[in-house]
Amino acid sequence: MKTIISGTGRAVPNNVIPNSAFAQQTFLDEEGNPFAIDSSEIIEKFSSITGIEERRYADKDINSSDLAAEAAKKAIANAGCDPEQIDYIIVAHNFGDTQLNSSQSEPLPSLSSKVKTHLGIKNPNCVAYDILFGCPGWIEGVVQAHAFIKADMAQRCLVIGAETLSRVIDPVDRDSMIFADGAGATIIEKKEGEAGILSHKTVTYTANNEIDMLNYGQSYNPDNSTKFIKMKGRKVYEFALSNVPQAMKACFDASGEDISALKKVFIHQANMKMDDAIIKRFYRLYRSAVPENVLPMNIQKHGNSSVATVPTLYDQVLKNDLEGHQLQKGDVILFASVGAGMNVNAITYKV
Amino acid sequence: MKTIISGTGRAVPNNVIPNSAFAQQTFLDEEGNPFAIDSSEIIEKFSSITGIEERRYADKDINSSDLAAEAAKKAIANAGCDPEQIDYIIVAHNFGDTQLNSSQSEPLPSLSSKVKTHLGIKNPNCVAYDILFGCPGWIEGVVQAHAFIKADMAQRCLVIGAETLSRVIDPVDRDSMIFADGAGATIIEKKEGEAGILSHKTVTYTANNEIDMLNYGQSYNPDNSTKFIKMKGRKVYEFALSNVPQAMKACFDASGEDISALKKVFIHQANMKMDDAIIKRFYRLYRSAVPENVLPMNIQKHGNSSVATVPTLYDQVLKNDLEGHQLQKGDVILFASVGAGMNVNAITYKV
Repeated sequence: MKTIISGTGRAVPNNVIPNSAFAQQTFLDEEGNPFAIDSSEIIEKFSSITGIEERRYADKDINSSDLAAEAAKKAIANAGCDPEQIDYIIVAHNFGDTQLNSSQSEPLPSLSSKVKTHLGIKNPNCVAYDILFGCPGWIEGVVQAHAFIKADMAQRCLVIGAETLSRVIDPVDRDSMIFADGAGATIIEKKEGEAGILSHKTVTYTANNEIDMLNYGQSYNPDNSTKFIKMKGRKVYEFALSNVPQAMKACFDASGEDISALKKVFIHQANMKMDDAIIKRFYRLYRSAVPENVLPMNIQKHGNSSVATVPTLYDQVLKNDLEGHQLQKGDVILFASVGAGMNVNAITYKV
Repeated sequence: MKTIISGTGRAVPNNVIPNSAFAQQTFLDEEGNPFAIDSSEIIEKFSSITGIEERRYADKDINSSDLAAEAAKKAIANAGCDPEQIDYIIVAHNFGDTQLNSSQSEPLPSLSSKVKTHLGIKNPNCVAYDILFGCPGWIEGVVQAHAFIKADMAQRCLVIGAETLSRVIDPVDRDSMIFADGAGATIIEKKEGEAGILSHKTVTYTANNEIDMLNYGQSYNPDNSTKFIKMKGRKVYEFALSNVPQAMKACFDASGEDISALKKVFIHQANMKMDDAIIKRFYRLYRSAVPENVLPMNIQKHGNSSVATVPTLYDQVLKNDLEGHQLQKGDVILFASVGAGMNVNAITYKV
């Protein structure tokens, strides 16, 4: 018995926000002082490090739960399953629904209950809950669905990652340019055969001041008392390089597959330089060079939409919507993510 | 193999808030109009329906994650386990950490990561995540821990319910008097023997406008633009009476035990009249009268602390801190809860 991904879907907001949209913004440092270089130079450096050229923001009346429901409908259609036969709806996010121009996240009722409402599912035995696990939330939701299937508590789960980070960013913080909105959804189900989850690994690091690397903190504008998502970029980078390759290796080795069989790594779209460095270190652990075309990336056009990046990227590749990347039945791939907590996780999967 | 609760602990804030603390408050109805009766009369009616005489609020510098960590330390000590041997930390809450006098919930990083930091656990394989599931979150966390144990993905989990509802209540809303702060924690582990989880049942209802029965909405004070927890009291009451007894029965029947064996029902402390009515209907489904002393209640002194009520109540009874209620080894009990989503769940458990 295996746990497979039988359907995928994504919700990509229509509003394209190019880097040039930030050209008039005065960015401030952590002390609230303007930088010595001007915004266009900041944007240029930002783009060369992160790889981001543009990102998507949700329409003003659209919330995370709406994006989640849109992606879910596509995943259900793609899987061809009856929504009334879904045992769990698991929505990974971090900030709940946050209305445009509101400083309040709305975590009650859960996004998963809102998604269930949107989908019109009547079956009360379809249990809807949300998880908060930083950016690795969608992968962790899949691990939890796998647990329910292994424990014989579910046959089929809908696992979604959805976030509208554009609603929780500090306008004067240059890191805000990283963040984006989106949702990715998947149907996870029990099936006999070769395909499915081969192994998984999750770690939570809190013993070395990881707790504040990504947090909810004061604006860099001293006149603004609202809290926003805040990132200690350099510390996150160092943390990721130290811990993500090892977790990926622990996961992959547990699959029993040879590294030469690994076709693609679907890694959290956090920052292109960081993702490249992680992959290099990962392959270095196998004394191997990074194979060509192993790393699909969509951060250039999508930015970092937190929990949504990995399922969105996977959906794009499966549906031949990401140039130069394809998957074949039987391909061995790795999903991996890192984020607030600090959490790292990975799944080895046979398509 | 069974899943047992091997340790319990609770964090009950020191600040006792008696009903008289609300005597000077002008309460407004949904339209923002003052009631025809004065506050003392409102408080008297409130007390006779809910049973609440006083509730606890956290100290100003204490957040939900601090209460969670305090309860967790006691549960770990009670279980006598090594914290480094915990595989999962699952924290159920709804509003994250919310600072006193702030309108912003802080969901990032997760409360479970903060708890892990507080506990000083170094083992990265101890995975920390949060669930949002309305008031039934602690029971659902136990069900998830049970799934990990059944799936051979965990041996021992720390499951906590923690909330500071005093930080998200609308001062002019009389329902605000219901809500309270607190945390309850449990160690859930794999063990051979008779004791443990016998059955469980969870349902999520969204098909009949349940989504807004508990929500985050505008203050009844038209001059206050902040959103607070809001409850459609009558609808919640009707929903609970229609759906909770059936879910409890489905759960209990799946245990294979006879109703005469049921010693105690640990039900979410939502409202005394509602809880009494639920229990009556539950026993009526078995054509039986409600046995004496089957329903421990602490709402009189603790109010409704959401996810914290059930584990707090269980801890009190286990430790002989609730007059008139005791448990013996081998007793069959039922945990049950209802809340935002709308979600209902129950666990049949042999002590």
